[in-house]
Amino acid sequence: MFASRMRTFNVLKQNTSLLSKRLQSTAPKVAPVKKSSILKPIFYGSLLAATAAVGYGVYGLYKEQHPAPLPVETQSNKKKLVILGTGWASITLLKSIDTSLYDITVISPRDHFLFTPLLPSAPVSTVAVESIKEDVSTLIRQGSGKVTFLQKEALDVDPQNKKVIVEGDKAVDYDILVFSVGAQPNTFGIPGVYENALFMKEANDAVILKAKLKENLQKATELPAGSQERKDLLSMIVVGGGPTGVETAAELQDYISEEVAKWNPELAADCQIHLVEGLGNILGMFDQKMYTLAQDHLKKNGVALKLNAMAQKVVGNTITVKDSKTQELVDMKFGILIWATGNGTRPVTAKLMSRLPETQNNRRGLLINQKLELLGAEGSIYALGDCTFHKGLVPTAQVAHQEGEYLAKVLETRHIIDNTDNDAVKASLAKTIKDFDYFNQGALCYIGGESAINDIKMSKKIEFKLGGSFLSFKVWQCAYLAMAVTWRTRFLIACDWIKVHIVGRQ
Amino acid sequence: MFASRMRTFNVLKQNTSLLSKRLQSTAPKVAPVKKSSILKPIFYGSLLAATAAVGYGVYGLYKEQHPAPLPVETQSNKKKLVILGTGWASITLLKSIDTSLYDITVISPRDHFLFTPLLPSAPVSTVAVESIKEDVSTLIRQGSGKVTFLQKEALDVDPQNKKVIVEGDKAVDYDILVFSVGAQPNTFGIPGVYENALFMKEANDAVILKAKLKENLQKATELPAGSQERKDLLSMIVVGGGPTGVETAAELQDYISEEVAKWNPELAADCQIHLVEGLGNILGMFDQKMYTLAQDHLKKNGVALKLNAMAQKVVGNTITVKDSKTQELVDMKFGILIWATGNGTRPVTAKLMSRLPETQNNRRGLLINQKLELLGAEGSIYALGDCTFHKGLVPTAQVAHQEGEYLAKVLETRHIIDNTDNDAVKASLAKTIKDFDYFNQGALCYIGGESAINDIKMSKKIEFKLGGSFLSFKVWQCAYLAMAVTWRTRFLIACDWIKVHIVGRQ
Repeated sequence: MFASRMRTFNVLKQNTSLLSKRLQSTAPKVAPVKKSSILKPIFYGSLLAATAAVGYGVYGLYKEQHPAPLPVETQSNKKKLVILGTGWASITLLKSIDTSLYDITVISPRDHFLFTPLLPSAPVSTVAVESIKEDVSTLIRQGSGKVTFLQKEALDVDPQNKKVIVEGDKAVDYDILVFSVGAQPNTFGIPGVYENALFMKEANDAVILKAKLKENLQKATELPAGSQERKDLLSMIVVGGGPTGVETAAELQDYISEEVAKWNPELAADCQIHLVEGLGNILGMFDQKMYTLAQDHLKKNGVALKLNAMAQKVVGNTITVKDSKTQELVDMKFGILIWATGNGTRPVTAKLMSRLPETQNNRRGLLINQKLELLGAEGSIYALGDCTFHKGLVPTAQVAHQEGEYLAKVLETRHIIDNTDNDAVKASLAKTIKDFDYFNQGALCYIGGESAINDIKMSKKIEFKLGGSFLSFKVWQCAYLAMAVTWRTRFLIACDWIKVHIVGRQ
Repeated sequence: MFASRMRTFNVLKQNTSLLSKRLQSTAPKVAPVKKSSILKPIFYGSLLAATAAVGYGVYGLYKEQHPAPLPVETQSNKKKLVILGTGWASITLLKSIDTSLYDITVISPRDHFLFTPLLPSAPVSTVAVESIKEDVSTLIRQGSGKVTFLQKEALDVDPQNKKVIVEGDKAVDYDILVFSVGAQPNTFGIPGVYENALFMKEANDAVILKAKLKENLQKATELPAGSQERKDLLSMIVVGGGPTGVETAAELQDYISEEVAKWNPELAADCQIHLVEGLGNILGMFDQKMYTLAQDHLKKNGVALKLNAMAQKVVGNTITVKDSKTQELVDMKFGILIWATGNGTRPVTAKLMSRLPETQNNRRGLLINQKLELLGAEGSIYALGDCTFHKGLVPTAQVAHQEGEYLAKVLETRHIIDNTDNDAVKASLAKTIKDFDYFNQGALCYIGGESAINDIKMSKKIEFKLGGSFLSFKVWQCAYLAMAVTWRTRFLIACDWIKVHIVGRQ
């Protein structure tokens, strides 16, 4: 890596001197000095920036891998902070807050944080599933305080007595509860989906899809090439034209075009990826120019787009979709059906709603105020992420991440307030707790064949859009690396990407 | 990598010149020139060798990743060669033979080759499971001929009619059958082992052990530190003092000492790895000095050795062992029990034996002659690897590998014989088929804490032994890399080892 980078710099240097020579020969005497004096600082500036970036990464990785010694346990007067969930909101909060201020317990049936943006890359081994998982046992050691992790599913919350009931009928007391359990796939009651589709939500979904993909490809080698039976088996339908669905379809298509076509071209010829979307276009969070670019790119790479198609039912290996314009019903056979749309309420969330019937009356999610406090339990319960429903806060990693960061600051301020005797100071501190203000940083989506579309908002005025080029892919890669929550994950993902170039995907 | 290697060379160069300067100042005038002229060729020789090695690897990897186009299928008069199994013997044969000479079909329920020597490293993620698996679909594309892979379990063989019966009642005809289905774990009828122990034989065993290990470690965090209940849960017993058992125990101990101790020192303090062996020492294939070194090293690192201990029964989470000297019975509690000893006969092997009752009368394995032909079906069935029983041929990867190489040559000669009309030529060619001559290249075993014992036989006279040092570990690593069947695997394993140094094991 370093050697090749040095080579690049040397070439750059050479070009620079060539350029300055050429300039010297044609331009008046004053000009070249000026030009060269611009290029030189750019070159050395870049070198410095690259060195600084690598140094920063190495330092970050070192710090992460060398946790501070565990604090000696003493009788604690700290308030009990219980965090339900190990997703984006919970883990961002945990990483942002001074963990020594509270007696923190994290409760979740899932012992890892999952870097969901790259989940669609995992079934085809563009990245390893292990590279996008981060153990909670290591994450809780990143701060200076002791954090307890309970790998149990929360079954119920009692807001009156401030208790969480977990599996095994155990009660965990809290002073402050952060409810961020996420959502589960939603099949909208469409018959047969739950029984016949795969999902793209948890790490294990990637493992299951990978196994199914391999199984079908192997089974297909035993069927006559070009036969309908084989084509049906190799038909893969992704339902949902959001980023998850599009990236899943794009990654599957990459796998077919790059790996299957290499090792078994006849088999690749019988594969077909379909992307089914209920609306008239995919990727609604982008503007028309961008999503049109994505649609054209996907089609060019071989993905069959089916727009305005509403899923009606799934029976065995057939999904019936209705064209929302012509009302025509079409049956589509599949070997693999991936349901990549819809967020549903988890049982524990529904239970919490039922505990606060007067305020929690929206089936789509928990209602919160501008300070992320749960309506009906303000002051003691905060609700974050995909389990909530609030205008302007879409169920994305970005929102959950910003909510986690915001809440860390709020809870740190609350800690100071709790430890202040002066009422006037308390009141003025309380006023410093501003409402949560979500800043949409834009959207990114990989569209296959080393291309992506990016709509990045640097500030409320500076926005830059880039799509369809190799550069857009590199920007997408850098942005995703930046989003990862640990340097370890960044390092492993980067390694995986390099590996794909050298030995392909398995 | 390259940059750091260059640094090493520069340092070496510097040292060399320093050395020659020093020599110049003290020794008579003639000497330094001579010394320096020795060091110089060593330095440049090493540089050349390293460059050649890297170049060879890159070329190998490139060739592997760019398979020749599939041959156009024509009506084939080739003999049908059916290979049962995708283990060491089968895959070595497949990689060594000219695949265009026969109409080859590989049949196995397992769609990958597993690099078994590193399987004990996989449960603790020293290497990823994916790094030691090689898809059969890519392996069958390495030769110039078309090879068919049928992912089915062979249920029966009919030696009279030359048919293999596979799942789904399908019959596959053969002219020549290579029977190399391997073995399955053998619990020697000891009650409770099959129900309560994990094994270390297939890729999935590593996945299961990894999940169990994580589950137990997490459960233990919820029990009081130092309590008997917690210690019992964190007791891990490996039965079998052969290389697999020793390496499994060593890797588990590394994981506890390096990862668990880092992230949760209290938990690591309650972990205990036990290695149980029925004989008076472990690693019987090494000499006394070597196995004593291994035993001392394991003990020093924290592994509890229990020698002369014969497993009697397993009930729930307790194994009862009998001291073969004192006849004393001891109960040992465990959270994880790994059965790493014993090879048993697979059902299809037993079935084949029953088809040839007159010649196949040894329950320990298929009987073969010196040319690896199955007794009772000479000329049409060859049996290789762990499913056979023959004096001097132990059930190891090394034997299976050499058998595969040998058989490739035999089958190539047989092809020439079949295509020769002249009987005299046929007869003289047949005489060139020599008996299989196994050459024991020695043994290697990782013993934990970056140390190994190696007994490497370069030829029948040159043998070198190395144990206990960091160098022994590096030799072990190089030897294992050399043993891998593809450059892809070599590359991935090397990457994993580097990753462990940077971000640890997950």
